[in-house]
Amino acid sequence: MAAQTILFDFTLDAGKTATAIQRQEVARIVRNELEHVFSQLELAYSMESMDNGYFSVLHENKETIITCRIFQQGLLTINVEYYLADGKEPIMSFDTMRTMELILRQKLDSDRSKYLPPIKRGGYIDIYMTSSDERIIEYDIDTLVYEARSPFQKIQIMHSKTLGNMLILDELQNIAESDLIYTETLMGRGIENYEGKEICILGGGDGALLYELLKENPKHVVMLEIDELVMQACNKYLNTICGDVLEKRKTDQYEIIVGDCVDYMKKFIAEGRKFDYVFGDLTDIPISDAPIGECWDFIRTIFEHSFQLLKPDGKYLTHGNGTSCLESLQLFEDQLRLLKPKVKFTTTKAFVPSFMEEWLFYQVTFA
Amino acid sequence: MAAQTILFDFTLDAGKTATAIQRQEVARIVRNELEHVFSQLELAYSMESMDNGYFSVLHENKETIITCRIFQQGLLTINVEYYLADGKEPIMSFDTMRTMELILRQKLDSDRSKYLPPIKRGGYIDIYMTSSDERIIEYDIDTLVYEARSPFQKIQIMHSKTLGNMLILDELQNIAESDLIYTETLMGRGIENYEGKEICILGGGDGALLYELLKENPKHVVMLEIDELVMQACNKYLNTICGDVLEKRKTDQYEIIVGDCVDYMKKFIAEGRKFDYVFGDLTDIPISDAPIGECWDFIRTIFEHSFQLLKPDGKYLTHGNGTSCLESLQLFEDQLRLLKPKVKFTTTKAFVPSFMEEWLFYQVTFA
Repeated sequence: MAAQTILFDFTLDAGKTATAIQRQEVARIVRNELEHVFSQLELAYSMESMDNGYFSVLHENKETIITCRIFQQGLLTINVEYYLADGKEPIMSFDTMRTMELILRQKLDSDRSKYLPPIKRGGYIDIYMTSSDERIIEYDIDTLVYEARSPFQKIQIMHSKTLGNMLILDELQNIAESDLIYTETLMGRGIENYEGKEICILGGGDGALLYELLKENPKHVVMLEIDELVMQACNKYLNTICGDVLEKRKTDQYEIIVGDCVDYMKKFIAEGRKFDYVFGDLTDIPISDAPIGECWDFIRTIFEHSFQLLKPDGKYLTHGNGTSCLESLQLFEDQLRLLKPKVKFTTTKAFVPSFMEEWLFYQVTFA
Repeated sequence: MAAQTILFDFTLDAGKTATAIQRQEVARIVRNELEHVFSQLELAYSMESMDNGYFSVLHENKETIITCRIFQQGLLTINVEYYLADGKEPIMSFDTMRTMELILRQKLDSDRSKYLPPIKRGGYIDIYMTSSDERIIEYDIDTLVYEARSPFQKIQIMHSKTLGNMLILDELQNIAESDLIYTETLMGRGIENYEGKEICILGGGDGALLYELLKENPKHVVMLEIDELVMQACNKYLNTICGDVLEKRKTDQYEIIVGDCVDYMKKFIAEGRKFDYVFGDLTDIPISDAPIGECWDFIRTIFEHSFQLLKPDGKYLTHGNGTSCLESLQLFEDQLRLLKPKVKFTTTKAFVPSFMEEWLFYQVTFA
């Protein structure tokens, strides 16, 4: 079940929408055209304001409600909204939308016009996600494969027709079957040499990083993941990217410890345990524009402990954020610059299919 | 200049929205909450229908207009629309939106709720494009670099913060600086051997395919492109993907002929000219669900002539469509199956960054 909202926009010559009479004329043209599509159209309400233009509500049987707004600055918006029951045909086909756009564009002598594909609202599966810089992206998700709430987060596995199964944590896309490039860029495949190395993964519950690292013949990998349920879900629904590494929790090559990574890092530090590589594969870095709050505190704590776990020539590898999030990346780098002893870093980037954007990755070493 | 429309949805227990009295109660809660955000809120209009639930119009100074609809099936939609002048702050920050969503979700005991980032309407640059299966994708376009109308199409070069310059033809994204993978998959880099080969490109006005092919040391490439203006635009604004190949029209290695490719193919056929590879790098194949109309006729014509130009062991390489467009791809393959002499084909696919989707490519040979 879902409602559909279809948004049309037409840029108008501001000289033709400046007065109430002119706006009435635009409204008349719109109404005439809408009557071709909605034969039972009725005007329910209209409002005119010297400062803010014209607004009206039209409807067909109170079922399809259409709002029409004419901004005096020279813009017309038409919003069509109705309830589309499962299995029913949409009220407007793409052909109807395109035709209506073209005719109105011509009749209104509009310079630029646009309609968006119907926005589906209230569906059981949320198909709209946002990029790191708050852009709308509609996914081709057709199935909610799994949903559960762990003590730590809401866990969903959704199936995308083209990206495969996707892990969504608290409404944020984490990794999908399409995203080998994510793991390969995070680990710097072909650049870093993991053979015989000791590695610690912080987080990494989807298992993809562990799976790919084990192919490079390291001495040992320890993974510290807090959420047992994430691992169970990924083991079951994402095994094309994690193989069977989440199946067993301990082998000669690796150990998965379920617990708070900070606790275990403290334990390792107390034991004097050191690693060649530490991976920060935890929650995303915050988008917020000030380096305050729990999230940045957490990131600082992770940094500080990670560097205490690294051998002098060790590396800390982690994901950053979308490359368009300059402010957030800047704050992240500011945190790195605060560390003592001093560190230096390089970055790499890759377009991650399921994120639908380019992502930045960090390689940090002692300065 | 642009209007902003913010869409909120709340799934409600249908048992709580079945009667007019219940819907009035939901509307009261919504109005109370909206008054926290819009202190001058006024109710302008409301409409109640036994079959179609409740609808109301609220506004603040007739400037911000809010429609609120309660579907008796158990769904509430709230649409907030206002004009945002250049340089002004949005009326609702992301924090305000998030807070309003969370509070209403709790007060209405909503199971699922959602808000979309504000939809920008009527802006000079169109930042919303659609995938091949009609999904909405908002791009991080910040500049319209170039716009012109040639005798054949509307040509735009837009700059995306993360994808670089993008070529848009008649509102459809064609290629961007981020899309080497497109060209490499089309040509099967690392699979096909172009050394010493004779090649014909149909279309390819962006120059990327020609540029990449020339790196593989072919004997000669002839490119048949109809639109001089596309080449001028790409030569100027897309030279990271086409180098300087569009600068000169003829060298020992290649020749660019500006004209209708079908005319030149006929000419080549009459001359008995044959190629090792023919590339179909023309307009996208149609999305429509029947193999009729000009576009499919055009594609059939291209196929027929192309195979007359191929040596017996030659290959026809072309792009298909988004891998989610099963119907369209099926129709494309149906066209291939109609060809005489018979052909056979293989496919490859790649996620193309600027398309924000996975694309299918065809390799066709004589059966």
